[in-house]
Amino acid sequence: MKIMVLGGDGYCGWATALYLSGKGHSVAILDSFARRQWDRELEVETLTPIRAMPERLEVWRRLTGNTIELFVGDVTDYDYLCSAIKDFRPDAVVHFAEQRSAPYSMIDRKHAVFTQVNNVVGTLNLLFALRQFQPDCHLVKLGTMGEYGTPNIDIEEGYLAIEHNGRKDVLPYPKQPGSFYHLSKVHDSHNIMFACRIWKLRATDLNQGVVYGAFTSETALDEALINRFDYDEVFGTVMNRFCVQAAIGHPLTVYGKGGQTRGYLDIRDTVRCIEIACLNPAGRGEFRVFNQFTEQFSVLDIARMVESAARDLSLRVELHHLPDPRVEAEEHYYHAKHSKLTDLGLQPHLLSPSLLASLMRLAMKYHDRIDRSLFLPHVNWRNASNDRRSLRAMAATASPHMENGRLPVAAEASGGFEQGD
Amino acid sequence: MKIMVLGGDGYCGWATALYLSGKGHSVAILDSFARRQWDRELEVETLTPIRAMPERLEVWRRLTGNTIELFVGDVTDYDYLCSAIKDFRPDAVVHFAEQRSAPYSMIDRKHAVFTQVNNVVGTLNLLFALRQFQPDCHLVKLGTMGEYGTPNIDIEEGYLAIEHNGRKDVLPYPKQPGSFYHLSKVHDSHNIMFACRIWKLRATDLNQGVVYGAFTSETALDEALINRFDYDEVFGTVMNRFCVQAAIGHPLTVYGKGGQTRGYLDIRDTVRCIEIACLNPAGRGEFRVFNQFTEQFSVLDIARMVESAARDLSLRVELHHLPDPRVEAEEHYYHAKHSKLTDLGLQPHLLSPSLLASLMRLAMKYHDRIDRSLFLPHVNWRNASNDRRSLRAMAATASPHMENGRLPVAAEASGGFEQGD
Repeated sequence: MKIMVLGGDGYCGWATALYLSGKGHSVAILDSFARRQWDRELEVETLTPIRAMPERLEVWRRLTGNTIELFVGDVTDYDYLCSAIKDFRPDAVVHFAEQRSAPYSMIDRKHAVFTQVNNVVGTLNLLFALRQFQPDCHLVKLGTMGEYGTPNIDIEEGYLAIEHNGRKDVLPYPKQPGSFYHLSKVHDSHNIMFACRIWKLRATDLNQGVVYGAFTSETALDEALINRFDYDEVFGTVMNRFCVQAAIGHPLTVYGKGGQTRGYLDIRDTVRCIEIACLNPAGRGEFRVFNQFTEQFSVLDIARMVESAARDLSLRVELHHLPDPRVEAEEHYYHAKHSKLTDLGLQPHLLSPSLLASLMRLAMKYHDRIDRSLFLPHVNWRNASNDRRSLRAMAATASPHMENGRLPVAAEASGGFEQGD
Repeated sequence: MKIMVLGGDGYCGWATALYLSGKGHSVAILDSFARRQWDRELEVETLTPIRAMPERLEVWRRLTGNTIELFVGDVTDYDYLCSAIKDFRPDAVVHFAEQRSAPYSMIDRKHAVFTQVNNVVGTLNLLFALRQFQPDCHLVKLGTMGEYGTPNIDIEEGYLAIEHNGRKDVLPYPKQPGSFYHLSKVHDSHNIMFACRIWKLRATDLNQGVVYGAFTSETALDEALINRFDYDEVFGTVMNRFCVQAAIGHPLTVYGKGGQTRGYLDIRDTVRCIEIACLNPAGRGEFRVFNQFTEQFSVLDIARMVESAARDLSLRVELHHLPDPRVEAEEHYYHAKHSKLTDLGLQPHLLSPSLLASLMRLAMKYHDRIDRSLFLPHVNWRNASNDRRSLRAMAATASPHMENGRLPVAAEASGGFEQGD
């Protein structure tokens, strides 16, 4: 198939582009490299030293003989997006090209507005471009399990059969997202559902859980193909952060009680899920939703698994509970369905101690690239504006304490999250 | 109370500002006059000759002794919005300041993107401004009944109690909006609900039905205070259009079968509903939803009521069914709850033949301002891009037919809505 991966320079997008290319699909990447720019803005870096895209693609071509076409541009630039669609004529478009960090969207008003405008306009542009130039193309859109929030009933895959006052209907599952970023994905979902209805487009919304893991078979082929590994408080995810913390003897920073339960999946399953969706397209006019995760864990579950895997590597690990910087239930019911992708053939890689050990070994390998000031949360949901720069500076002045595996007083204070501005 | 009306130059906003001022509240209007600009863009005009805002406010002051403060600026300009909030320090902000036409949002990509960005960013700005500078202020936000779509179950007021697999929760009512405009209001609702949760703001979302009627006691005081009366295909609503058509012997243009059923209310009830919401604020952290309409009618119900009221004025009326330019169910179940505002004291003005007659007399009074080329729908939901200008030109060349009360061939053809671009 001809598959265009929007956002193919990011963590999921890069792994997906290589996987699909390796499977023999004709692949193009469209990316503006915005993700690298956000790292520079935040003064953070991925743990792993990623290469520039031209080098990545050249090494991939040399090793496999497969060429991935590159379009450098942004989906919010409608003219550019249209020219790329008309040029490549994809059978499927995989849309990762959004700002995907909840804390980034909660920094302040500008980041909230940027996230929603960037994501909503990019997706609207894509819908119009497909309607105009490639109406039979299958849109495979990355949503998030975070769109559902944590309702007190089972989470279904996109739709809910409801009986009310003696009548029945099947309606979009109610959404209770927990950040301006998650909200942007809810907005996208509503927009895409509508476009499928009025224009008979075909779309699959993949409500993905938290992705973990550093390598796929393809990114492991050569160091030049290495993928991002984000462990910072803004773009990093909890499992990555815990593994990096464990590797250097830093306490695991559990937000609140740690009962926050979410769906998770291995990046090797992400790439397979995308291929499954592409190979089994939605019908014309169909807006289909799959919940894309394989297991659910609480934050405390993950902390304890990391602690146990660390012990096997002779690493001593402490758990430190910080006040939760997010506004979320710290203990709650959570049971989300996720059978549609396994019904289509997904064979999950479940989380194992050896996977966690491999992530810790990766952190040890690149320990000179670890910046401990990136561990602590400096974006508090309760504030309208978060000054990460000054909070990091405060934490840095107290840094000697961190060498002993203890949190600095200033950082703990910043964890206290006064509701000031 | 100190009440700031955002969008106080529009149809609902102007009537609301005068009503609240007349009731003794301290009122400020914030408006950028964008609505007047959209009329110029579309080459349309309200039936009634509205005056410039300074004249409107001066006449109101002269007649009543009440001063309404004016802030000229746009809610998408955050700095300006903040300065106005800090200056006026409102107890309640009534937010009408959005692009509110479904057909406008469906003209093409630019209008869809504009509508969503304008509405979503304006509301995000307002949430941040209130959080920063006036956190106890009550946000009274205009939503729309169109957020719900036409589900096959009863529509509740914002939330739905759901029992599923033996567990229970009360969740946001599922949304199935029918245009990029209606989608923007759904996005707003989700954003506001979230802001109430994380920042303990207080908000009431008024999911309003279709508003009809030309006058309130206040706008009727003097011709200089006259309100807008839109009958064109983009900003006009069905009841206005039918009354103007009936007044000049033009067939009533029913879209499709005419079974599309919606909630309606008199503008005299709109202004009272707003006051009721202001006087009974939501609690801190509460996101409250009221369905703001008083009766539900199908398009055909309205056509027949207009036909009957016209007969009493010795006007002969024909009904003409056009292909529906919208993608919507032409016959469907519809039963929406609307008891919360009546529980708080609303005494509805129900639709009467005399009200319809008064609208037709208004159309006769201003018949020299009626532009028949504005009756026919030139925005088709199925197109990615609608060239209103050329369709209107086609209709105009066939205009002699319209004098006989028949639709021109070109216009009927344009009603055929090929799915081209």
